[in-house]
Amino acid sequence: MTQLEKVQQWVSDQELDVAYLSDPMTITYLTGFNSDPIERILALLVFPNQDPFLFAPALEVEAIKDTGWKYPVYGYLDHEHPFDMIAAQVMKRNSNPKNWAIEKSQLTINRLASLTEQFPKSHFDTDLTTMIQRLRLIKTNDEIEKLDEAGKWADFAFKTGFDAVKIGRTEQQVAADLEYALKQHGIMQMSFETLIQAGAHAAEPHGATAANKIAGDELILFDLGTVFEGYISDASRTVAVGKLNEKQADIYKVCLEAQLTAQAAAKPGLTAAELDKIARDIITKAGYGEYFIHRLGHGMGMSEHEFPSIMEGNTMQLEPGMCFSIEPGIYIPGVAGVRIEDCVHITPDGCAPFTHTSKELTYVG
Amino acid sequence: MTQLEKVQQWVSDQELDVAYLSDPMTITYLTGFNSDPIERILALLVFPNQDPFLFAPALEVEAIKDTGWKYPVYGYLDHEHPFDMIAAQVMKRNSNPKNWAIEKSQLTINRLASLTEQFPKSHFDTDLTTMIQRLRLIKTNDEIEKLDEAGKWADFAFKTGFDAVKIGRTEQQVAADLEYALKQHGIMQMSFETLIQAGAHAAEPHGATAANKIAGDELILFDLGTVFEGYISDASRTVAVGKLNEKQADIYKVCLEAQLTAQAAAKPGLTAAELDKIARDIITKAGYGEYFIHRLGHGMGMSEHEFPSIMEGNTMQLEPGMCFSIEPGIYIPGVAGVRIEDCVHITPDGCAPFTHTSKELTYVG
Repeated sequence: MTQLEKVQQWVSDQELDVAYLSDPMTITYLTGFNSDPIERILALLVFPNQDPFLFAPALEVEAIKDTGWKYPVYGYLDHEHPFDMIAAQVMKRNSNPKNWAIEKSQLTINRLASLTEQFPKSHFDTDLTTMIQRLRLIKTNDEIEKLDEAGKWADFAFKTGFDAVKIGRTEQQVAADLEYALKQHGIMQMSFETLIQAGAHAAEPHGATAANKIAGDELILFDLGTVFEGYISDASRTVAVGKLNEKQADIYKVCLEAQLTAQAAAKPGLTAAELDKIARDIITKAGYGEYFIHRLGHGMGMSEHEFPSIMEGNTMQLEPGMCFSIEPGIYIPGVAGVRIEDCVHITPDGCAPFTHTSKELTYVG
Repeated sequence: MTQLEKVQQWVSDQELDVAYLSDPMTITYLTGFNSDPIERILALLVFPNQDPFLFAPALEVEAIKDTGWKYPVYGYLDHEHPFDMIAAQVMKRNSNPKNWAIEKSQLTINRLASLTEQFPKSHFDTDLTTMIQRLRLIKTNDEIEKLDEAGKWADFAFKTGFDAVKIGRTEQQVAADLEYALKQHGIMQMSFETLIQAGAHAAEPHGATAANKIAGDELILFDLGTVFEGYISDASRTVAVGKLNEKQADIYKVCLEAQLTAQAAAKPGLTAAELDKIARDIITKAGYGEYFIHRLGHGMGMSEHEFPSIMEGNTMQLEPGMCFSIEPGIYIPGVAGVRIEDCVHITPDGCAPFTHTSKELTYVG
């Protein structure tokens, strides 16, 4: 049964008349068609006993057909009224679609109002969010293979990036070099903006790669990822240039211990919260707890924003096929920042990382 | 009066108790802080007679303070409950906030449910979307300057890209070269994925830069843009490699005439629909109407998805300070695609483009 057929089965089991799927990532997952329509309308409509259809901007229709999509796709031009057209297609299949499922975590108030206007007597109470998240949570072997390949390119990027570090060069120049090297190999897309932060700049975990020059005697944080056939990698390494002082060396040592310990502990049956605590306790015990200001990890696959969230309070038990990051960090404002991260997938008796670049303290430049 | 003060004034005029702003782009526009929190919560709360506050993930708080934000900012950790914390801060300022404004074009059903749970007796009927769109529609001189600068870098990218074209090289290699050149100058971010399409590939207006080799005797479409201090450029040029056949030359000629005519016609008082029609009529008259499958243009500024939309049905009159693309295209499946695009801003008596690369048919390679 395909993932799309599972959604159809669910729609049938829930005795719904139609499911309106609108999250571009969900649509990619279920159809293979990958596009973010931004303000335009892209929707997948699924019925219990009839074929689904896609509704898309006209200029996406050819691309959708090229993916091998075997059901109907209807395009609309910019000046047309998409919700009138969607309603007409739904009515052809069911003249009284009473119970709808929608993606409440993605659908906006205005878009629901447009649907409600077309179907004022319908109910839009059922949320597909959890069902889709659950579907995407356990990765197939095919997905794991793509994540492995994306991980290999992240390792390649680290190698190229480390080689590009030199005192006096900027964070931006190093980022440019590693991305250019990837593109020469046809890896055109990073999964997020490559982050390279030298010295105290790395203490801003959500800062951006800047024109800061590498000064030496400091830590440099790399956080990067590539996209391979719609699947991402995401990994961080922190490396040293020149001599480290005691504090820099100590936060590296503590962060590494937290990362290695958590990665060694991750296995089926452990909860997400327990895994977070394993890493956090090490950092807290070393006196840096207040500087570890984010969760241990996030789920990943087609994006770095999936389930499971590896954090306090999440009692979800890890299962084979779940994929997530293990990324403790210590950020001391004005001093330095360290983050060390692999993404892993849970195996029957532990976990396996997608990236393999050494995590021992490495001197570059 | 700052743009944020205008929002506050509006909240007061509408006799609202609080406005909940959640579109990351709106928040950037009003506060200068630029970040997409993805699944985390980022919100700006504005009150009629009190200071506004920002609510953000803890790991963004330092970056927010660095932008010079002078009002309170409250951070939350991943395991905390953001809507409980937002509610507590709101209640400190107004123990009975009855009437709320929200951004209905951005707020999801689930997030509104979280707000409603905190404030079950409140009304969330007022939509801020139009007010904010209207505010962002007319660009200030400062914004125009940034758009001009972003445009200069798009011109630089065209020059570098055209120089990189050679028979046998791939679309991807050309894209890599031009982006690398930009990064050497500190321009790290493209406003969207650089699109380079050779030959018939360009007939897919929403396709992606691929490993296709440049074969010669064909047209190559470039669509690209850069980000400069939060403002974007977006421009397209179609160039020739080798000899063109009659059809290729003809669609270029027709598309160019449509583009130049529309750009010469754009001025205050004309409606968006009238401008679309000026370009569309030329293409239709030449027999290619069915191959021009998108609107003439989109508003732009901080993103390429703003108002005004230059399309059939939009009776909005152009005014000085409005910024948008003029981008007719002709896409003949299996044959070739042409798009020629400048973004412009409306001036008191016409319009001025942000990009200046020649639009006459240019031979490269």
